[in-house]
Amino acid sequence: MSTEKCFAKGSAAPGPVPQGHIRLYSMRFCPFAQRTRLVLNAKGIKHDIININLKDKPDWFLERNPLGLVPTLETAGGEVIYESPITCEYLDEVYPEKKLLPSSAFGKAQQKMMLEHFSKITPYFYKIPMGRKKGEDVSGLEGELKQKFAKLNEDLVNKKTKFFGGDSITMIDYMMWPWFERLEINELQHFLDDTPELKKWMERMSEDPAVKATMHSLETYKAFYETYIEGKPNYDYGL
Amino acid sequence: MSTEKCFAKGSAAPGPVPQGHIRLYSMRFCPFAQRTRLVLNAKGIKHDIININLKDKPDWFLERNPLGLVPTLETAGGEVIYESPITCEYLDEVYPEKKLLPSSAFGKAQQKMMLEHFSKITPYFYKIPMGRKKGEDVSGLEGELKQKFAKLNEDLVNKKTKFFGGDSITMIDYMMWPWFERLEINELQHFLDDTPELKKWMERMSEDPAVKATMHSLETYKAFYETYIEGKPNYDYGL
Repeated sequence: MSTEKCFAKGSAAPGPVPQGHIRLYSMRFCPFAQRTRLVLNAKGIKHDIININLKDKPDWFLERNPLGLVPTLETAGGEVIYESPITCEYLDEVYPEKKLLPSSAFGKAQQKMMLEHFSKITPYFYKIPMGRKKGEDVSGLEGELKQKFAKLNEDLVNKKTKFFGGDSITMIDYMMWPWFERLEINELQHFLDDTPELKKWMERMSEDPAVKATMHSLETYKAFYETYIEGKPNYDYGL
Repeated sequence: MSTEKCFAKGSAAPGPVPQGHIRLYSMRFCPFAQRTRLVLNAKGIKHDIININLKDKPDWFLERNPLGLVPTLETAGGEVIYESPITCEYLDEVYPEKKLLPSSAFGKAQQKMMLEHFSKITPYFYKIPMGRKKGEDVSGLEGELKQKFAKLNEDLVNKKTKFFGGDSITMIDYMMWPWFERLEINELQHFLDDTPELKKWMERMSEDPAVKATMHSLETYKAFYETYIEGKPNYDYGL
């Protein structure tokens, strides 16, 4: 079962999570939920997805997670896990196939420190487009984001690796990807002009099967964001 | 070696971390660094502490951690780890004696979700005293913090356990403790009047040897905070 259309308040609750499956409560355009979708895909974990109408959340969803956040995982045993990095780490520990986090404690710590740095980048993906829309001067914010991209680029240059955790994709790459997928819809893609290694990383990432499986086209994003900005997000756009 | 007085810009760099030891860069009154000190103490890990003058950081410290944050760990192998939850998890994984995190993936996820909730509480410990100092109306903030304490109290009532992760102290208790130790200096202790279980938790925590080993007296906090508010923090107060 993988019901794609979103569930709103008043909808019937989905049945129990089947044994051997895990369920993700998601929203198709949410970058945080995409992290979990990437990990589920990359690791080949059997799952179903319940999309939630975030503007009008079903009571049965709020009973499972009173914070009403996506991504939220639910196991067949009724365990509930939320916050995107927590869901992804949980999946990597419970499903040993294709480990995405390093096995060493220091390797894990490094990935978490990179994620902590990156968490200071994501707000720019809202602040800059929102500021532009309001006609504000966003040149300061743009300069800051460019510096942060330059740091990421430098990191790849210093490491001499194809991805942020080595020459193959690891957890940190998936944690960062959703915002890069949204560069163009946020009109930030020219920021990569001065960061050639970061640009190459993006190109490599876009070839990854899990990335391809969870991706939306620019046209789809455009159409969704239009409804989002109007305050009437069409969570089912394109279905 | 455990040099207590803080190192400032221009000071000679400390020698290498001795084999079999781990080094913590700390500041004696920092609640985030206290998390790591609690874990080092609770697990009986051989360590030395280098206190940093956070107003005037040594260059050799910024070379180790360009963000200049405490807590920062340094291993004998030159590995550098920072961000308090990351340092604590690292220590719990590397030093298997007296595990503070649960062994199950879901148990770990639960602790991380609790920590995520708690991270929304810590800002009130600055906002309320600062607002009061400026003569602002902080009744709204106070009401919010009271609600958050009520939630923590409810959590203990529902769990029927002595601590937040069970009937013995686990990681989450140490992650929360430093702010409760500072309740009185921040004149927030009466907030516990309506949360008897949380108050009992505090009493139980204050009996813990690691808590006792890392604690400062109210008088010491008062004297330090006075210098802090004047903009000239005396990091060595009481030594």
